[in-house]
Amino acid sequence: MMRLYGYWRSSASYRLRLALAHKDLAYEIVPVSLLKQENLSPAHLERNPTGQVPVLQVVHDDQTVFLAQSLPIIEYLEERHPEPPLLPKHPIARAQARELAEMINAGIQPHQNLPVLKRIDSELKGDSKQWASFFITRGLEALEVRASKVAGEFLVGDSVSIADVFLLPQLYNARRFGVPLEGCETLRRVEARCLLLPRWDQAAPERQPDADPSH
Amino acid sequence: MMRLYGYWRSSASYRLRLALAHKDLAYEIVPVSLLKQENLSPAHLERNPTGQVPVLQVVHDDQTVFLAQSLPIIEYLEERHPEPPLLPKHPIARAQARELAEMINAGIQPHQNLPVLKRIDSELKGDSKQWASFFITRGLEALEVRASKVAGEFLVGDSVSIADVFLLPQLYNARRFGVPLEGCETLRRVEARCLLLPRWDQAAPERQPDADPSH
Repeated sequence: MMRLYGYWRSSASYRLRLALAHKDLAYEIVPVSLLKQENLSPAHLERNPTGQVPVLQVVHDDQTVFLAQSLPIIEYLEERHPEPPLLPKHPIARAQARELAEMINAGIQPHQNLPVLKRIDSELKGDSKQWASFFITRGLEALEVRASKVAGEFLVGDSVSIADVFLLPQLYNARRFGVPLEGCETLRRVEARCLLLPRWDQAAPERQPDADPSH
Repeated sequence: MMRLYGYWRSSASYRLRLALAHKDLAYEIVPVSLLKQENLSPAHLERNPTGQVPVLQVVHDDQTVFLAQSLPIIEYLEERHPEPPLLPKHPIARAQARELAEMINAGIQPHQNLPVLKRIDSELKGDSKQWASFFITRGLEALEVRASKVAGEFLVGDSVSIADVFLLPQLYNARRFGVPLEGCETLRRVEARCLLLPRWDQAAPERQPDADPSH
């Protein structure tokens, strides 16, 4: 069985849980606590030298392999388990779904992850919450503009895609950082629609075995 | 003909030029100066609401479309023009090529792009060069570890992939920021091999029409 090394509140882990839930694939969760820095243990660094989560352990041709980076892992799942799909069929729509996912993956999330926020506070004596809010706000504004042109029932047209899988964890993070979402009408409408999909609610951070809302 | 809106020194534009060169695809360059903030003009924001480059204008089914985000654009080119390939055939190798590309795309580059560096200097009164060097060094160390396990002649095995397309611009940037590369033996060896590939040298920043080495 596949094994997901992740952390309940990590947004990249949340993306992968959504993709696995959407495709109804069975997997075992192995919690890696970012708070306790278990991600920097030799065992985890052997799985992923960046010390990041998630890592998906798969068995392929009898070999055990550790895959890292949420978007490439989801592309792998899409190639191995194409139904139900997370990429549209039309080439332009595929590019747009991947683009919206990258606007979050490379455009927003890197600026709010833990090592960056720690460095803002400790090295630069700055306000990490303000730093994160600035980049989340700016990124979601652009995402709303782009999405408002290509969205249907979901972010890209009328079928679920990786863009939706990336949207929910990012809105979850936006709320954690107190970013107002009034202007993001398309994004909030699509989020509400996604939560009606089978099994998507089960991927939520609070429903994970390692969830600890006191932190 | 395809039209590439880019900037000579933008590493994401450089990636796209390498992919287009590798596949020997004809395109027209439209320079968008980041120094003059032409990327924030209404015309460019209409193409890409993030104000980033590159944007690739393509005509698909008689419709003109603007695609953004370098990795999704390269995936689109790969699907439309599969030969010569930029993704391996084996599912695990494909995942690894995408993973190494993302280690740069989402793991390093976002921390050294212009809006971030400006904010470090102006808002936080920090040292943006030190900030960029820290994240480039840390990211390349992890990339070297991962690459040393999967590289052959190129970053993933013995065929060129998107991972190599992402490597060259990142090493170019590392040198700009004065990051020492002694420990990155695999990365430097693969870089030297890539520069022997047909047309790859033509994609270099200094060889672009808008190159201005005085800046």
